[in-house]
Amino acid sequence: MIVVTGSITARHDSFDEIRKLSLEHVHRSRKEPGCIFHAVQIDCENPLRLVFIEQWADRAALQAHFAVPASREFVRALQPLAAAATTLELYDATRLEKL
Amino acid sequence: MIVVTGSITARHDSFDEIRKLSLEHVHRSRKEPGCIFHAVQIDCENPLRLVFIEQWADRAALQAHFAVPASREFVRALQPLAAAATTLELYDATRLEKL
Repeated sequence: MIVVTGSITARHDSFDEIRKLSLEHVHRSRKEPGCIFHAVQIDCENPLRLVFIEQWADRAALQAHFAVPASREFVRALQPLAAAATTLELYDATRLEKL
Repeated sequence: MIVVTGSITARHDSFDEIRKLSLEHVHRSRKEPGCIFHAVQIDCENPLRLVFIEQWADRAALQAHFAVPASREFVRALQPLAAAATTLELYDATRLEKL
């Protein structure tokens, strides 16, 4: 499984738009093949920072996700709205336990 | 590396207390040996749901974390405040990329 964590920091005047775009991206991504989990949260220590947690069946599913035109458009649309560079980290992960 | 994701859903009357306890837990945990990353966020789709993302150097570091009295007290203190059972998932993870 591939776990993706990512974040984007908004400005006060762009937060609502980024949140809307992010939720649309999450809902769209959940329908894509190989998408196990996809969600966005607000950082408790920085209310302008949105954090993504995603799980994909494998690298191919994630690559396909990146290639979806709407995914590319989402990333493009974020650029003028972001107060800081977006971050993205990919992990090869195996679930050990669910407590 | 061990990645931990967890969540707790508050009631309207307990959210602020859970958020305070959670941030105290995050700040305390970051000082523990083997803690690579520890943070708490608010679910964009459920403003009463708090989501934890943690990274620990290895299973031993995580086990030590669970055994810290303050960690146990945190988990105990959450019980009467939670609107739903807490969730916790452990992953064995290797970082592939940082984009």
